[in-house]
Amino acid sequence: MHSEAAAARPRIVIIGCGFGGLEAARAMRHADVDITVVDRTNHHLFQPLLYQVATAGLSAPAIAAPVRHLFRKQSNVTTLLGEVVDIDAARRVVRLKDDGALPYDHLIVAAGATHSYFGRDDWAPFAPGLKTLDDAFGIRRKVLLAFETAEKETDPARRAAWLTFVVIGGGPTGVEMAGTLAEIARHTLPGEFRRIDPAQAKVLLLEGSPRVLQSMPEDLSDRARRLLEKLGVEVRTGARVTAIDAHGLEVRPGQGEAYRIESRCIVWAAGVAASPLGRQVAQATGATLDRAGRVQVQPDLSLPGHPEISVVGDLAAASSHVPGREPRPVPGVSPAAKQMGRLAASNILARIAGRPVANFRYRDYGNLATIGRNAGVVDLTTPFGHLKFSGYPAWLFWLFAHIWFLIGFRNRIVVLFDWAAAYWSHQRYARVVTDIEPVTSDG
Amino acid sequence: MHSEAAAARPRIVIIGCGFGGLEAARAMRHADVDITVVDRTNHHLFQPLLYQVATAGLSAPAIAAPVRHLFRKQSNVTTLLGEVVDIDAARRVVRLKDDGALPYDHLIVAAGATHSYFGRDDWAPFAPGLKTLDDAFGIRRKVLLAFETAEKETDPARRAAWLTFVVIGGGPTGVEMAGTLAEIARHTLPGEFRRIDPAQAKVLLLEGSPRVLQSMPEDLSDRARRLLEKLGVEVRTGARVTAIDAHGLEVRPGQGEAYRIESRCIVWAAGVAASPLGRQVAQATGATLDRAGRVQVQPDLSLPGHPEISVVGDLAAASSHVPGREPRPVPGVSPAAKQMGRLAASNILARIAGRPVANFRYRDYGNLATIGRNAGVVDLTTPFGHLKFSGYPAWLFWLFAHIWFLIGFRNRIVVLFDWAAAYWSHQRYARVVTDIEPVTSDG
Repeated sequence: MHSEAAAARPRIVIIGCGFGGLEAARAMRHADVDITVVDRTNHHLFQPLLYQVATAGLSAPAIAAPVRHLFRKQSNVTTLLGEVVDIDAARRVVRLKDDGALPYDHLIVAAGATHSYFGRDDWAPFAPGLKTLDDAFGIRRKVLLAFETAEKETDPARRAAWLTFVVIGGGPTGVEMAGTLAEIARHTLPGEFRRIDPAQAKVLLLEGSPRVLQSMPEDLSDRARRLLEKLGVEVRTGARVTAIDAHGLEVRPGQGEAYRIESRCIVWAAGVAASPLGRQVAQATGATLDRAGRVQVQPDLSLPGHPEISVVGDLAAASSHVPGREPRPVPGVSPAAKQMGRLAASNILARIAGRPVANFRYRDYGNLATIGRNAGVVDLTTPFGHLKFSGYPAWLFWLFAHIWFLIGFRNRIVVLFDWAAAYWSHQRYARVVTDIEPVTSDG
Repeated sequence: MHSEAAAARPRIVIIGCGFGGLEAARAMRHADVDITVVDRTNHHLFQPLLYQVATAGLSAPAIAAPVRHLFRKQSNVTTLLGEVVDIDAARRVVRLKDDGALPYDHLIVAAGATHSYFGRDDWAPFAPGLKTLDDAFGIRRKVLLAFETAEKETDPARRAAWLTFVVIGGGPTGVEMAGTLAEIARHTLPGEFRRIDPAQAKVLLLEGSPRVLQSMPEDLSDRARRLLEKLGVEVRTGARVTAIDAHGLEVRPGQGEAYRIESRCIVWAAGVAASPLGRQVAQATGATLDRAGRVQVQPDLSLPGHPEISVVGDLAAASSHVPGREPRPVPGVSPAAKQMGRLAASNILARIAGRPVANFRYRDYGNLATIGRNAGVVDLTTPFGHLKFSGYPAWLFWLFAHIWFLIGFRNRIVVLFDWAAAYWSHQRYARVVTDIEPVTSDG
């Protein structure tokens, strides 16, 4: 009886359990459907705080919750750890790497994005990006070992190269990384070294466009720049990176000659590309991809000719539809992914019930970024216009907004506690490096 | 002026910053000496709680503190991250892997121990041991992915193999691992899976000798066994492992035929061997090694003919000397390492000052182990004899003893908080797996 009823229930497969996939599954928690969430990792990652793991401020479990634990009370969800290798849209089957196959009646693809080196993937080993926990561990190792190696280095030029940190890309992640690196050098580490002065470390933030935080109003970009400089970050806008190797990088400024920076610790925060799964989706359905590899979706987030497949989050090239206005492109931010996930889910339930589907409308609540300890910029979109503020109030607002949206009650407490401790002590407690490869002066 | 004074100060090098090395450096905090602490990792690890990281109960930063942070206020200590490859006792120089050299006037070797497969190193990939954070991450990955794979597996025999967990070795680590694994299967995971029942998982503890916790009195061993069995652990004593491969292991019981256990998750908690650095020490000084590779030290912990070199902790084959009694071998436990570190330091200061050195006397405060949630066994050595208790009071005692001895105030609070949360929720929050390799039914 139970199995018959189960067989009759619509089967919904969700690929990816980032913000989009998680919200989609949650939005169907009361529905009489069979949901399978498949993800390559066993955890949902709160990506806005990933830079804190990379800079040793938070431990990984504080911002990562096991997917199956999040769904433990939602009995219509089955969680599977697995990598999707193929989507067979004709047979309506998702195939997994280990030979598993998941038949579906409705499919939500929420596979997210990865970093892009704009065709220069050979830069990846020298300038790691920040998308996964492993990325964060890698950057943490690189940052901490750079100071350790500088302490052992006797050659002044090489020592200076170990103490030069370059962040490429002036978006929120780049700004947050650069600000935190400056804070580590100036406030966390001094007093712990005997041969070097960590406060002498140089932190550079390179941005190709004329200003940092492009998605913000211009006055907040200026404010962010000044706050970064106050922290000790050297901000260079209009600076295009033309080469990266194991010992440094080459920069072409807006005016003047190209020059070289010797640095042993370069972080890539410049480019985002859609998950390679976008190509599978395009092949399987005939959907088109935009230049960033994102899947062009219809106003209701489904694919042309395939109403049973929706794409949400960073993998979707979606537009916001407000009656009577021009459609506007949706930015690749977590609130957009969550809103898309919810709409895709309610559209699926509408289709099952024979009700009409709705178009996606992005509600933009604004933008915020933090700049080290005590400072931030906030641009809130309210029904009455923009509300902009910066400095300490913006930092407080950022802190509580992020903690509020952290998944899972316990994590919120842990993060709040970690930050309170870090704030009062100027310390960063997750300064653990494992898997130390031999660090030599030339390697 | 400053540099002249510095040049005249005795140079003390400490290899390894486990319990022995850390205590030695701390014991010299008021001395007018130049101490260099060199360690292969950047953190001091609180090893007694490592099994909690391996079983997803604690995050790594909760039990690992950056070495240089621990010494930030001890201005006579320089911390170096590096691997010692050679000790030149004639020239009194320690050589590092990256060509660095540390001249010394006094040397303390506190390089600790690693796990030993009793000559069967080919077993290592199938039955990882637990000594470093990377070991703990590896075991955590193995345990959590076993449940994930079982959820996907359709063949009943293979599914059963994924749900069979074997811990080899019935010492404190083995007992704690087995108890916690049973707890995870029975209390943490049920409700989160849809196809398997994690509570059906089998947890086996194999011990070659006739009883678990050999260092404890016999009645406490019996009590521990009963507590383990109550948790659902199958305890097999007198069971010798004769083969291990990727799919299981072969066991020869005290009586009867050898048999095979199919298991995809085997943990090695059976053997300990001294650090390979012991051989360097022996070669450099002519000291002798015991069967476990430990360096035979004199009663004052120095080496024959080399009063300027001391060996402490798990790397030392030391005896406890009480006037009028026979010398007794010192066990490889953390209180012994700490006591040795303190004596080696005070003997160095005595030699510098021309005072007589003291012999090592081990103060045994007893033994304790925890068995899952709520249960433990304690054997305290008091001036009036042994004080033995078990069950809930023993667990509480264990808990507070471990938190008390955790290095660093902040860690204590974090660990206490994590445990309180885990206790009330039955949850284990550090269930994060990164670096997931393809898990297939046969791999």
